[in-house]
Amino acid sequence: MTEPRQHAARRGTNLPRMGDFNLTVILDAIRRSENGLSRVELARIVGLSPQTISNISRRLLDQKLIVEAGKEGSGPGKPRTILRLNPAGMYAVGVHLDPSIVTVVLLDLVGAVVAKDAFATPEGHRPDEVVAAIAECVEALLASSGVPRELVAGAGVAAPGPIDLVRGAVVGAPLLRGWGDVPLQAMLQTATGLETVMDKDVTAVAVAETWAGGPEASGSFAVFYLGTGLGCGLVLGGEVYRGSSGNAGEIGHIIVDPDGPECFDGCGLRGTIGTVLEPVRLLAQAISLGALPPLPAEPTAADFHTGFLRLCALADEGQPAAVGVLREAARSMAHAAGVVGNLVDVERMVFGGPYWEPVAAFCLRVMPDMVNGRLATGGIHRVELAGTSLGQDVGAVGGACLVLERALAPRADRLLLDA
Amino acid sequence: MTEPRQHAARRGTNLPRMGDFNLTVILDAIRRSENGLSRVELARIVGLSPQTISNISRRLLDQKLIVEAGKEGSGPGKPRTILRLNPAGMYAVGVHLDPSIVTVVLLDLVGAVVAKDAFATPEGHRPDEVVAAIAECVEALLASSGVPRELVAGAGVAAPGPIDLVRGAVVGAPLLRGWGDVPLQAMLQTATGLETVMDKDVTAVAVAETWAGGPEASGSFAVFYLGTGLGCGLVLGGEVYRGSSGNAGEIGHIIVDPDGPECFDGCGLRGTIGTVLEPVRLLAQAISLGALPPLPAEPTAADFHTGFLRLCALADEGQPAAVGVLREAARSMAHAAGVVGNLVDVERMVFGGPYWEPVAAFCLRVMPDMVNGRLATGGIHRVELAGTSLGQDVGAVGGACLVLERALAPRADRLLLDA
Repeated sequence: MTEPRQHAARRGTNLPRMGDFNLTVILDAIRRSENGLSRVELARIVGLSPQTISNISRRLLDQKLIVEAGKEGSGPGKPRTILRLNPAGMYAVGVHLDPSIVTVVLLDLVGAVVAKDAFATPEGHRPDEVVAAIAECVEALLASSGVPRELVAGAGVAAPGPIDLVRGAVVGAPLLRGWGDVPLQAMLQTATGLETVMDKDVTAVAVAETWAGGPEASGSFAVFYLGTGLGCGLVLGGEVYRGSSGNAGEIGHIIVDPDGPECFDGCGLRGTIGTVLEPVRLLAQAISLGALPPLPAEPTAADFHTGFLRLCALADEGQPAAVGVLREAARSMAHAAGVVGNLVDVERMVFGGPYWEPVAAFCLRVMPDMVNGRLATGGIHRVELAGTSLGQDVGAVGGACLVLERALAPRADRLLLDA
Repeated sequence: MTEPRQHAARRGTNLPRMGDFNLTVILDAIRRSENGLSRVELARIVGLSPQTISNISRRLLDQKLIVEAGKEGSGPGKPRTILRLNPAGMYAVGVHLDPSIVTVVLLDLVGAVVAKDAFATPEGHRPDEVVAAIAECVEALLASSGVPRELVAGAGVAAPGPIDLVRGAVVGAPLLRGWGDVPLQAMLQTATGLETVMDKDVTAVAVAETWAGGPEASGSFAVFYLGTGLGCGLVLGGEVYRGSSGNAGEIGHIIVDPDGPECFDGCGLRGTIGTVLEPVRLLAQAISLGALPPLPAEPTAADFHTGFLRLCALADEGQPAAVGVLREAARSMAHAAGVVGNLVDVERMVFGGPYWEPVAAFCLRVMPDMVNGRLATGGIHRVELAGTSLGQDVGAVGGACLVLERALAPRADRLLLDA
């Protein structure tokens, strides 16, 4: 008998594990219901006995994670007490570290943002300065919100990849200057005094969608995050998929345009999605086609930003050249989404991120047919496309949701005994 | 409360489910051990109490799925009884339906092929003729093997995609002429009298790897099947991933060579992996470079096959033109594998299929560095590449493993109550 063979075996389960799992299943069902659930409805939905439901509700009420919220029912028999989440039962801090901006939110148990702040990422990107600035922001947010510190379950940080999930480290993130190997999770935990978890930014966005994305956020879906380049988070079979080292979702080097420009990171490929979708490049195309006036001689970031918004507005108005530029960008994004969809066969695709908002209306008109036209499952089921309902802060919300997910989500692996 | 919200909730678990799951966990641990395990070793490996181990071993012995296989131990204390799988405790039929050849195997409980046959897929591909021919082959195999029919748990068929997993139908498989929508699973069940399951061919190959692929077949890995085009099966977090409709792994349209030829299926893309890897095309390249003599004026399939084998042999001998052709093919395959690895972040990649065997030695020399050079996780962990240990019949073996997996694998969803 060799070591790897032992390692490969699955672990069993036992009664305490089962009880903990069923608690998270019940909490999850209540969380997903619009107006709360009665114990009878819960029993029907999750398939557990009335006695189990009753015992676990008692535990959840004792922990103040749920509340009894009035009675319901006018028919014969006793009116039923409705169980709802207690928004103030638990809080979590979420941090989205982006190379240019840091966003910090405080989330309550129902996934609502109760406080938020954002600041420019310290220039120079020195890890100790970045961490100190985040800790200061978290402290100020907690103080001003009045939320008792003992109700904050922890902090979750959404970091640019690649990451080392085991060590909680950022390893050579291309756009964080000098971040060769930074143990961000431990540094933040020390600096904030909060138990801290970390994940890749797109994974956090996927967690945000499953936790706070509404009733459609079940089954298998992909989340595309259009920020600096295009990233992808995966929810497969109802659970967020992280990959063997926490780095799933690196799609920036998918070739979408054989005639496209060389990849910006010098990998030697042509027409990769990350390069094709660069806003600066789309803007230059639009200007060369006469859709937009030239930029000033020494354009600022604000000039680029305004120009990009103008390009999107013109496309929405139907100006042919602007439509042409955005249609090609949408076709490229649809191509990449098609590669993802063909590999992992999802039901839905959700889009978000800072560069998504301005193109959302245009893309949601043209992309559904483009994507479905590329899928091998075209004859079997249609994939739905939607924008995120979580807005610009989805990364930071996702960071906080990492904490809530770890504490409360009914993950199947919760059942298995520790090795 | 709306329907989708109810649908989205996870189900709970209970004691009988837990017992069944632990039984499969124990069976799995025994299956993965090289020489069987004692009850004490089992308890340590799967984390269950000695009492639970004892009860479940008794159930497994009663069902004749395991046997007591001698004693072990010379130290103090009682020698330990070793538990092993009983190869003859259960059998399964596996069918691989390929557009040109049908392979049928009879597998025992340890995953060994005890009987096998193959025949050319009936010309014209008429579904009723194909099904009748398969049923006849299965019947002959069972009769000649002497395996009692009541020990055959069922039949599993590996079919070309796309498929409709829910209905067990093949839907518009591009290379099966006239297969618009064929309920293959039900037809085979009727024709063979065996309970029949169906999956896409690459999914079956992935199941074969997890079931019979040896101790390394755990964690997250991708299986690449090089047959007519390139397909991919995914094992994510220790479980085979099928996708929302059973069609995961369609990677044939990944662009790997911007200067490559137009895709053979008329999709309008250039340089897709499916087209670039066509053996006929590689052969034509080698001939145009003078690496091989021209084919006869009206080449037969055998001429192509012999030519392809010759090309591979020359590359293994180091002939520069042959090496050049195969190196480019390997680079393309590495590119596609890189796209897959970047999206799902796996630990290992396993290769197999009829066109893999001749190129295996060459590709396993050059591809590991090519693939790892394309992965975003290059600084964090190295992905291992290997050829399948299951040989040419991995598709049919996978079909049979579908049956064993369904009956015996410790899938986490086995714990959850039915909706």
